Amino acid sequence: MTQLLWQKPGVQVDERIQHFCAGADVILDREFLLFDIQASRAHAQGLQMIGILDATELDAIERELATLADDFASGRFVLDETYEDGHSAIEARLIDRLGDAGRKIHTGRSRNDQVLVATRLWLKDRLARLRELCLETTGIALTRADVESGLPLPGYTHLQRAVVSSAGMWWSAWAEAFIDNAARADDTLAWVDANPLGSAAGYGVNLPLAREHTTQALGFGRMQVSATYAQLSRGKFEMAAIEALSSGMLDLRRLAWDLSLFTSAEFGFVTLPAQYTTGSSIMPNKRNPDVIELMRASYASVAAARSEIEQLLSLPSGYHRDLQFSKGAIFHAFGRGLGALELLPDLLRNLEWKPEAMRAALEPSMYATDLAVDLARAGTPFRDAYRQAADPARWEAGDADASLAARVSPGAAGDLRLDLLRERLHALGGQAEGAPQT
Amino acid sequence: MTQLLWQKPGVQVDERIQHFCAGADVILDREFLLFDIQASRAHAQGLQMIGILDATELDAIERELATLADDFASGRFVLDETYEDGHSAIEARLIDRLGDAGRKIHTGRSRNDQVLVATRLWLKDRLARLRELCLETTGIALTRADVESGLPLPGYTHLQRAVVSSAGMWWSAWAEAFIDNAARADDTLAWVDANPLGSAAGYGVNLPLAREHTTQALGFGRMQVSATYAQLSRGKFEMAAIEALSSGMLDLRRLAWDLSLFTSAEFGFVTLPAQYTTGSSIMPNKRNPDVIELMRASYASVAAARSEIEQLLSLPSGYHRDLQFSKGAIFHAFGRGLGALELLPDLLRNLEWKPEAMRAALEPSMYATDLAVDLARAGTPFRDAYRQAADPARWEAGDADASLAARVSPGAAGDLRLDLLRERLHALGGQAEGAPQT
Amino acid sequence: MTQLLWQKPGVQVDERIQHFCAGADVILDREFLLFDIQASRAHAQGLQMIGILDATELDAIERELATLADDFASGRFVLDETYEDGHSAIEARLIDRLGDAGRKIHTGRSRNDQVLVATRLWLKDRLARLRELCLETTGIALTRADVESGLPLPGYTHLQRAVVSSAGMWWSAWAEAFIDNAARADDTLAWVDANPLGSAAGYGVNLPLAREHTTQALGFGRMQVSATYAQLSRGKFEMAAIEALSSGMLDLRRLAWDLSLFTSAEFGFVTLPAQYTTGSSIMPNKRNPDVIELMRASYASVAAARSEIEQLLSLPSGYHRDLQFSKGAIFHAFGRGLGALELLPDLLRNLEWKPEAMRAALEPSMYATDLAVDLARAGTPFRDAYRQAADPARWEAGDADASLAARVSPGAAGDLRLDLLRERLHALGGQAEGAPQT
Amino acid sequence: MTQLLWQKPGVQVDERIQHFCAGADVILDREFLLFDIQASRAHAQGLQMIGILDATELDAIERELATLADDFASGRFVLDETYEDGHSAIEARLIDRLGDAGRKIHTGRSRNDQVLVATRLWLKDRLARLRELCLETTGIALTRADVESGLPLPGYTHLQRAVVSSAGMWWSAWAEAFIDNAARADDTLAWVDANPLGSAAGYGVNLPLAREHTTQALGFGRMQVSATYAQLSRGKFEMAAIEALSSGMLDLRRLAWDLSLFTSAEFGFVTLPAQYTTGSSIMPNKRNPDVIELMRASYASVAAARSEIEQLLSLPSGYHRDLQFSKGAIFHAFGRGLGALELLPDLLRNLEWKPEAMRAALEPSMYATDLAVDLARAGTPFRDAYRQAADPARWEAGDADASLAARVSPGAAGDLRLDLLRERLHALGGQAEGAPQT
Repeated sequence: MTQLLWQKPGVQVDERIQHFCAGADVILDREFLLFDIQASRAHAQGLQMIGILDATELDAIERELATLADDFASGRFVLDETYEDGHSAIEARLIDRLGDAGRKIHTGRSRNDQVLVATRLWLKDRLARLRELCLETTGIALTRADVESGLPLPGYTHLQRAVVSSAGMWWSAWAEAFIDNAARADDTLAWVDANPLGSAAGYGVNLPLAREHTTQALGFGRMQVSATYAQLSRGKFEMAAIEALSSGMLDLRRLAWDLSLFTSAEFGFVTLPAQYTTGSSIMPNKRNPDVIELMRASYASVAAARSEIEQLLSLPSGYHRDLQFSKGAIFHAFGRGLGALELLPDLLRNLEWKPEAMRAALEPSMYATDLAVDLARAGTPFRDAYRQAADPARWEAGDADASLAARVSPGAAGDLRLDLLRERLHALGGQAEGAPQT
Repeated sequence: MTQLLWQKPGVQVDERIQHFCAGADVILDREFLLFDIQASRAHAQGLQMIGILDATELDAIERELATLADDFASGRFVLDETYEDGHSAIEARLIDRLGDAGRKIHTGRSRNDQVLVATRLWLKDRLARLRELCLETTGIALTRADVESGLPLPGYTHLQRAVVSSAGMWWSAWAEAFIDNAARADDTLAWVDANPLGSAAGYGVNLPLAREHTTQALGFGRMQVSATYAQLSRGKFEMAAIEALSSGMLDLRRLAWDLSLFTSAEFGFVTLPAQYTTGSSIMPNKRNPDVIELMRASYASVAAARSEIEQLLSLPSGYHRDLQFSKGAIFHAFGRGLGALELLPDLLRNLEWKPEAMRAALEPSMYATDLAVDLARAGTPFRDAYRQAADPARWEAGDADASLAARVSPGAAGDLRLDLLRERLHALGGQAEGAPQT
Repeated sequence: MTQLLWQKPGVQVDERIQHFCAGADVILDREFLLFDIQASRAHAQGLQMIGILDATELDAIERELATLADDFASGRFVLDETYEDGHSAIEARLIDRLGDAGRKIHTGRSRNDQVLVATRLWLKDRLARLRELCLETTGIALTRADVESGLPLPGYTHLQRAVVSSAGMWWSAWAEAFIDNAARADDTLAWVDANPLGSAAGYGVNLPLAREHTTQALGFGRMQVSATYAQLSRGKFEMAAIEALSSGMLDLRRLAWDLSLFTSAEFGFVTLPAQYTTGSSIMPNKRNPDVIELMRASYASVAAARSEIEQLLSLPSGYHRDLQFSKGAIFHAFGRGLGALELLPDLLRNLEWKPEAMRAALEPSMYATDLAVDLARAGTPFRDAYRQAADPARWEAGDADASLAARVSPGAAGDLRLDLLRERLHALGGQAEGAPQT
Repeated sequence: MTQLLWQKPGVQVDERIQHFCAGADVILDREFLLFDIQASRAHAQGLQMIGILDATELDAIERELATLADDFASGRFVLDETYEDGHSAIEARLIDRLGDAGRKIHTGRSRNDQVLVATRLWLKDRLARLRELCLETTGIALTRADVESGLPLPGYTHLQRAVVSSAGMWWSAWAEAFIDNAARADDTLAWVDANPLGSAAGYGVNLPLAREHTTQALGFGRMQVSATYAQLSRGKFEMAAIEALSSGMLDLRRLAWDLSLFTSAEFGFVTLPAQYTTGSSIMPNKRNPDVIELMRASYASVAAARSEIEQLLSLPSGYHRDLQFSKGAIFHAFGRGLGALELLPDLLRNLEWKPEAMRAALEPSMYATDLAVDLARAGTPFRDAYRQAADPARWEAGDADASLAARVSPGAAGDLRLDLLRERLHALGGQAEGAPQT
């Protein structure tokens, strides 16, 4: 039977209602517990600074919180349905072990700011991981762009063969995409980097809480000033974090689509290592690129989480229990999203091109645009050159390598400008894989 | 280490990739296992009918499937990560216990149609439950509409006091709403009631599978004819089921909003029994209607599930692994959605009106529309009557009971037409709560 | 300057606010005007039946409404920003032309039920069109399934070549899909077929409105009984209609994906008539299947409309101005959705297969499943047969025609069961194109 | 009859198909035309720098583009269905007026990068406006927070009265919220500030386009390097811009909810100026806060636009016509979103509190938390103090002003820390309204 902090004598508890309200909440709180402990420690320090706890009490609390963290990590402490949630579990443990000192920990704090600060720390942690994965992805893409800059690949628009492109262009596209994604993660991390601890239930308390201290102790970039805004930011900051994630996931979805096509028999441009494929229960001949497909599908979970949270947020200001459902949503989004992105660097490292198939897919019509531009350079107005080059009689098998070399507009195959991308990558703290140490 | 049905010798398995692909899939399959067993039994019967299994083998398989179902129900069999999924777990068990007979069970079947048929049976089961809850809700609402037809309640538009309404009108609104919701569940159940078993991987097999038999044995309304369409309906049918659910959830969200307002101190029209409220960790004075808020919030989870599935379905025809993620989505939608609806009948049974507060909120301006219509009936063109009645000098405290009694347009307080609603309820197999047996 | 029905003397109107509130509302109302006129006529008849209008007044109103409808159709009457909305435009016209008779038209009616009934009639009209397009699509698909039943087409799962399929299977899949879609449209049409006129602002009026008459005169299947529920169904019924539409659009998206791949050079299975393709502004060689891509993309607009409406509906009961935005949403959804579906029948009629390319894409491994099943039929337990058939040494170029003929599971190439589909089509009132008259 | 740039002789054009493909595209392009002209000018300058145009041709083109911009602004040039889209309209005009010089303008450019650059400039413009509106909103909120810091307002959680709050806390919440929203707009503006012009159809061209020049001439912060990534960023950058907008809109939705409640008779805390309210067609007594409701509802349109775009983006790399639908989506989002935000500053300036109603809503229980904290400060462990303060016998009418003054946790009523917010506002270039010039 769950312990309820706020239980009043004489009120009958209905098991079905309790169960509906609690849901899997306490299980979800396992994701937060270490962050909650960390924030509880900072809060206790603050309480000591304003005289609510004495040095001995603080010391005891800090030790016990450290023990709890160890016990949780080692499995000696299990957060399960015997607790209402992770927040009250921490308080219960401190009371159980320390008595009155434990009974003081919640002074000036509400579960509202307690869950806010744990969520905030968790989001920062996940955004930092997102950033790291994006930078790693860019590093690989840049290196392969360099090495494979001369490898011809058909360029498509509308899934129709358009002009000659190159593996180099393909790789540099993902390199720049993931630089942007890392930058978005970075910006978002800075944007949410505000300490809500000390806002209590959204209206502050009649104590001069040491919010500057907790802000600094927890490594926040700033204090979230308004106690009322702290509550308003619940869900809103989650939405921003999900958006940063979805930026990378949108690219991953398109990359996975490319690979899904490129590994088909019809395109046949790419081979995946065997461990990236699976078999069928009925068709003995199949090797299917399931991983690619699930990477592609993972965007859906991120989108779902955003949809879930935004539906919740049609509310007046102040805390409402509706907001509880934002918790599962962010776990779903980042669980699926980062899960997919974790596999990306290795996948990109290991995929192999099939150069003959790529060259075989280049056809004479794909040089028509080059021809039109050549005519334009020689003085024919482009619109006329276009009409001349539209005559199939003028199309002939071209030289793919020459075409790529001549594609000298900045950012095209003949002038990839990888140095510009490398600079942005370095500025974000990443580096090209296998790059010489500078 | 997970057993993989289709594993080929010599292929290295990458644990991280396996983990990403499997996700919580086998755990989710617990929801499906009994339906999968049921469908496996029908499939085995069909195989016997076309000579793939002999009578002894069929008999053994049926017994073993029954045992497995019992073992699962009793906890002797646990579906966990030692299996790739529930589908292969069943086959593995049959092979383990029965040898060659077990090795024959998958003849003419793919996991593709196996998961389709289990999902279909599950959806039918959940839609039937949805229907039942909607009918129960209607039954209560109709009874209270009847009993409380004369109780005045302010009627609002734009959250502004508009005209005098009644508890009877409020209840009859929900009664009709949930009749519609039950009808939608019913229609949707009939619409998805098509047997996909026997479609294999989407292209059928070179065996005259006894699909008429399995259709009948599993209680399906029709065979889903085209093997290729069976695959195309994955996700699509889930979307329809979610829509049927969301129809009820949209109403629940609005009903919960009403109760959230009505239980505020400012409105003060409704009292909830104590078990529907919870306390605060910091504010000793609070009794919060958390249940109401979580009921309201549950729509978000249903919407999220729809969003997740529809994002997955931008695909060419044929099976793609992306579709696997539709499984968690329907569990999330129906778990949250039916979870909330389960609590609704009791909540409606137990909520108490505060008649004095309701009457106190009626103000003179709320009779102005009645006045304008009275003038119109007496011959003043309505647009002129409207202008006359807009003069606050003409507003006076009216008689709420008389106003309700005079509101005789069909479906309004003076003529609720509950008989029409009762007829539709009966036609759907429900009945008003406490209604005399007919 | 817009005329405002409800304008009170002395209140300053702020142009910016008026503009924001009105938006493009009156322009959107052009879609509704004829339905609004039709409902106004029925309402006037009802007013005459209860003595608010005399026979002469009714006659004048009916004539003037007919004239207005003609004027609108011919362009003599333009619904533009000089009116607040279409609803007040009708009243203004009647007052302008008929004086007091016109001033009586709004007796017992609110713009709330006026917009509800116009929307309802519009939705019914659009759902009927949806149904019709689905049936036409099925008719073509069935005919081509029959004619092209023997034409081999590679069958894919995971975009990997799996087994031999046929054009017949492909067509029969869409045939069954669009039968379901027509049935969904049908069910939904019946579900929303309830008359809200006479519910006024959600609380009825103190007049015995002739709601049975208007229900019958407007061709509704039933009266929407509760005046309060009529308001609650705003948005909810729109959601259901959008869902019926999205059922067809989900299939269209997948069909368009197939054609996008099949018209690529790599697959090369399908040729589209030239009018379905467009050129590029820079690449003289391109012929792009833009129509296919926009058909695929149209699902997004339907999803967006649903998202827009469901975000609006987190509200207490009663009318709120938020609901106004549901209007543009349904026009967007049905505009794009039916716009795409309108083009589908002709597209399906005119697309041409390239049989040599389709046969050339069949490879020996695609017969492995047939082989495994053959072994199973001959007595080898399937799981062993599967392992034997997984040996590439056993794969050999098969006979596609024989493979299709042997695929005799019901609904597969060798036994398409088109008769079952034809029966359902007939039951819904459609028929196969070019089918002999029965 | 629309002129098609790429039209080939002999191909029949199907009007219905053309109409479906074009949609309202050319009308939508009116939003882009001036940006397209601006980018065309920079492109022409670049062409002159690489010798495609001579100085005379460039001069003529620049003049003609300026004339076109004037003609468009003055209405002499109307962009309508006689053009395929705005992009070809510009080229057609140049050809019409300048002959061969005009025929050269499209050298090295595709409509793909032309629409990308116009969209990018438009997004930057809209994000700058968003930022400006957020700063203006903050300025007002900060000033009112200062002036009304001592005005008591009930503080709610779960819509239940919780503790005494203040108008100052309410205003400072929105002040901080809109600082964050301005910062998000700023970050996003910098993130999308990359020049795609010169990427052609996604693969560059065989010309050394002067991309550094166009980047600088158009005021972009950086070149979007990879030609292929430029295409991949279509839709992705739109999603980010929409997210920045939705950040502000989430807050606006909650603010509108507050005002919707506060202007109800039941709460009665706020009066809106008459121009913010409208009347009813049937109820003479009504004054409805429609503006507030439409502001609240506007979030739905932003969410819908995001949903529309993200559904489109499940695509392989390269341009696909699906992306065209992203255009209407961003216009819808920013049209509705900025439309609502434009009205916010004035609304906030003009709303009036009703202090007596606010004080009347403060009840004894709302001091219980203060009491518990007081007990805790005096040495009672908080968990015990909480239990003592939960006894209604101990609740008494408190002194709201004293309670606010004592609420000294940073960011609460007794210590609002507006200086910290003012600093952030200044750093973003805004300032508090009515603030002394510094």
